[in-house]
Amino acid sequence: MTNIGEIMNKCNSSTFNLNLDKYYPNSHKIYHKGNIYKDLLVSMRQIKLSNGELVPVYDTSGNYTETNKIIDINQGLAPNRKKFYLSEKPLTQLAYAKKGIITPEMEYVAIRENMALDVTLGASKTKFNYPITPEFVREQILQGKAIIPANINHPELEPMIIGRNFLVKVNANIGNSAVSSSLSEEVEKLIWAVTWGADTVMDLSTGKDISITREYIIRNSPVPIGTVPIYQALEKVGGIAEDLSWEVMREVLIEQAKQGVDYFTIHAGVLKEHIPLTQNRVTGIVSRGGAIMAKWCMAHNKQNFLYTNFSEICEIMQQYDVSFSLGDGLRPGCIADANDEAQFAELKTQGELNKIAYSFDVQTMNEGPGHVPLDKIEENMQKQLSWCNEAPFYTLGPLVIDFAAGYDHIASAIGAANIANYGCAMLCYVTPKEHLGLPNKKDVKDGLIAYKIAAFAADLAKGHPAAYYRNLQMSKARFEFRWDDQFNLSIDPVVAREFHDETLPKDAAKSAHFCSMCGPKFCSMKIHQEIKNFSAANIK
Amino acid sequence: MTNIGEIMNKCNSSTFNLNLDKYYPNSHKIYHKGNIYKDLLVSMRQIKLSNGELVPVYDTSGNYTETNKIIDINQGLAPNRKKFYLSEKPLTQLAYAKKGIITPEMEYVAIRENMALDVTLGASKTKFNYPITPEFVREQILQGKAIIPANINHPELEPMIIGRNFLVKVNANIGNSAVSSSLSEEVEKLIWAVTWGADTVMDLSTGKDISITREYIIRNSPVPIGTVPIYQALEKVGGIAEDLSWEVMREVLIEQAKQGVDYFTIHAGVLKEHIPLTQNRVTGIVSRGGAIMAKWCMAHNKQNFLYTNFSEICEIMQQYDVSFSLGDGLRPGCIADANDEAQFAELKTQGELNKIAYSFDVQTMNEGPGHVPLDKIEENMQKQLSWCNEAPFYTLGPLVIDFAAGYDHIASAIGAANIANYGCAMLCYVTPKEHLGLPNKKDVKDGLIAYKIAAFAADLAKGHPAAYYRNLQMSKARFEFRWDDQFNLSIDPVVAREFHDETLPKDAAKSAHFCSMCGPKFCSMKIHQEIKNFSAANIK
Repeated sequence: MTNIGEIMNKCNSSTFNLNLDKYYPNSHKIYHKGNIYKDLLVSMRQIKLSNGELVPVYDTSGNYTETNKIIDINQGLAPNRKKFYLSEKPLTQLAYAKKGIITPEMEYVAIRENMALDVTLGASKTKFNYPITPEFVREQILQGKAIIPANINHPELEPMIIGRNFLVKVNANIGNSAVSSSLSEEVEKLIWAVTWGADTVMDLSTGKDISITREYIIRNSPVPIGTVPIYQALEKVGGIAEDLSWEVMREVLIEQAKQGVDYFTIHAGVLKEHIPLTQNRVTGIVSRGGAIMAKWCMAHNKQNFLYTNFSEICEIMQQYDVSFSLGDGLRPGCIADANDEAQFAELKTQGELNKIAYSFDVQTMNEGPGHVPLDKIEENMQKQLSWCNEAPFYTLGPLVIDFAAGYDHIASAIGAANIANYGCAMLCYVTPKEHLGLPNKKDVKDGLIAYKIAAFAADLAKGHPAAYYRNLQMSKARFEFRWDDQFNLSIDPVVAREFHDETLPKDAAKSAHFCSMCGPKFCSMKIHQEIKNFSAANIK
Repeated sequence: MTNIGEIMNKCNSSTFNLNLDKYYPNSHKIYHKGNIYKDLLVSMRQIKLSNGELVPVYDTSGNYTETNKIIDINQGLAPNRKKFYLSEKPLTQLAYAKKGIITPEMEYVAIRENMALDVTLGASKTKFNYPITPEFVREQILQGKAIIPANINHPELEPMIIGRNFLVKVNANIGNSAVSSSLSEEVEKLIWAVTWGADTVMDLSTGKDISITREYIIRNSPVPIGTVPIYQALEKVGGIAEDLSWEVMREVLIEQAKQGVDYFTIHAGVLKEHIPLTQNRVTGIVSRGGAIMAKWCMAHNKQNFLYTNFSEICEIMQQYDVSFSLGDGLRPGCIADANDEAQFAELKTQGELNKIAYSFDVQTMNEGPGHVPLDKIEENMQKQLSWCNEAPFYTLGPLVIDFAAGYDHIASAIGAANIANYGCAMLCYVTPKEHLGLPNKKDVKDGLIAYKIAAFAADLAKGHPAAYYRNLQMSKARFEFRWDDQFNLSIDPVVAREFHDETLPKDAAKSAHFCSMCGPKFCSMKIHQEIKNFSAANIK
């Protein structure tokens, strides 16, 4: 970890305080204590309902939403995690899991995922029939089925887990490109993203100043940060793919690992022999990293240097507990190319690499598509589970049609919900600007909300008790005409209230037993209450 | 059919001309001629690409988007369909199908669905391996697997077909309620809805003046119009459900059938004995029609009069070829209530009613949920196909989570795409205002676009050649950096262009071989072109 004071003083308007009331009315932060590690404080958000009930929900916003907390991004967040390190130089989470040790991070995520189990749920209502205990977390990591991406040099982070037996997670991409964007904007995007539920954030910057941008992002991030190190390597060689080398890449990996990046996308599965398989595709290679490595292979007529040096990459990542996100450089770029030979050849290679990483105690997930029609999504998940030893799958979308430009957050949320239901552990969001331009704040929020819906849809389908509990609260509030509670329990309370108030702005309407859609005479729920009264008298 | 001149002269600013260029640049209307019926003119939209290719696409906007056509809604659309009637007093489409007769409507929809088959597609690319011929249409109707909702008194309509072996259709609801909305606004919403792809429109008005509103809507609609006649019946008895009677309902059915309504939602499947099954639900009965009929049953301690008079309803509808949309009055109103005993009891009753309707030559589809988690969607479709003799299924969403208020168009588009992929034939859209208020124009458009994406996703998954062809054009335009073509092929060209131009507004960027997302150095597609050049020299 670099000393933030030395390099960071670049932002003028650098303080942030996200008053929770502004985005999540009637919510406040709560902290749940640990059992094994008594001083652990696991942060959550709690919604207070009008009937006095308290509904705890998962929260990714870190300290930014604590009451009256003012955070100076030139200082960074407090390195709270550090005091729980099990040694001066901690091992990877996977190494601890192999030794049978439950780490503070494992207990943290167990409590974080588990919040609703205190609540009487009617357990029979869900098919999610195993308890999320710290030991369960350890076992899932030991089996390679889940990862806790948490670089030992990112002590500002609140641990989270990625695996199909936990809540489905969502990643948001930020980062400047050569064409647009500035440093302070990127940090603001980070904070904005975690406010709207980003579980991890990838910094995909490709312009100048990418080291300093990344430093600001990591030091101010309560969530894991991922990067694609080949982008920085390419900058170092002036943008000429042929000039890349293992030595340049190695330097970048070490710099970023030391800085605290939590996971690296590494396109080591793009083999030279796979490239001809893309020749007849409609849209060829659409991954930036994949295209860069393919070009290097062709120019040098050599095997991908990320593949040939994979063990050394593992050694670097193992020292800092950086997790792998094995890139899918040959993912399909359109429906017509989905599930083709090139794509699956790379996935199979990813599976080999998973095994090598595991032997180095490096936690690993696999990246996946992209663009896949609804009928071909399940095959992706099945092959990944089978070939990659059930490691967490992390997909971009997939988009289920290609011509929804301007609405690709919706076209891809449909695919994302499906693949998550089949077992995908994390979804990389897509914004409405995908394929068209760089997302602004509104796009980031719209993308995240679409993806939180997709993730929750899968959580509910899989029967995660926390998801079921939160969802049930909304249904009850709806039936009991508790309008304020409906707004506050929604994914975006302020918009829900605004939409309601457009037609019925009066305060009295907040307790009215009807709404503007049907009016008082046609309200089915009102009539149903009357039917219940009949029934009590006549039927039973 | 009432004489429009007699009752319609209420709108002041009553003329409409939707210049296609405004919403769909580089598009124009084309008309495809019939083979059996030589004078048939089947309307489509054709997109002209920059490389000279012409891409025909399905179009629901009727004459409103014809160049320089000005339509006065006080006059209504031309009754073009009438000149093709096979007799003075035509039979239902199902009756003709039983007689082995291919009607003009059958040929019309065959051509309309079939447009892409002229185009070389690489047929092996899709698994949709039967040709959509007029005879195929007749067979599907004969088997009860598809319907052409087309009241003989709605000659302004352009025929369309609903069935799972055709393109998935989308319905948009409009209509005023007691709380809000005016006559001219409703007609404007209709035109707006068909501009954005509504295949049918339901008029759910419940306020005063519902007859005149409906008259305006039907006379100006190129798409089938559906209604829920019980709403008008309830108005007639002052909003008191207990005062409803078969006589009142009968009068309403005859009025609306004569007026030209193409399909009726009839809640005849809500039986008295089903009502106790809803007592332990979280959200009870959430269908307006279902709640009204349940209340009537309880108040009178009698069986649902729509069920006991079902044969007479069939006789009325058969005279005008009004199709049934058998209502799902007991659909679940939340995830917790999905797929319960009450819901499936009603669906089974719907299946009985389908058989009766068939015996009267009345075309029939079944309505379905509602709110269903992802893992329970397929069961809905399977049971409907099995119990209702493979009649078309028509569902509202379903929403896959309950707490996305403000974004329910997305939460439900996920469910809609899935159920359509399993075989649902028509999707009733949900707008962002669902559960909160009445949709405005923006909401109607947002809801329709989300649902067109869901419908296309299912079409692609099922391999419909027209969907595959349109989608492929977009992928090719993307790979070849034909930016204008990408915009024009998109579901909403104007928004796609606006989003692109936010970051790269210059005209030169429209032919640039990169975009603002990655910038020139990191463009994977650009690099892939270079790789192709390498390959040509080195690999082959």
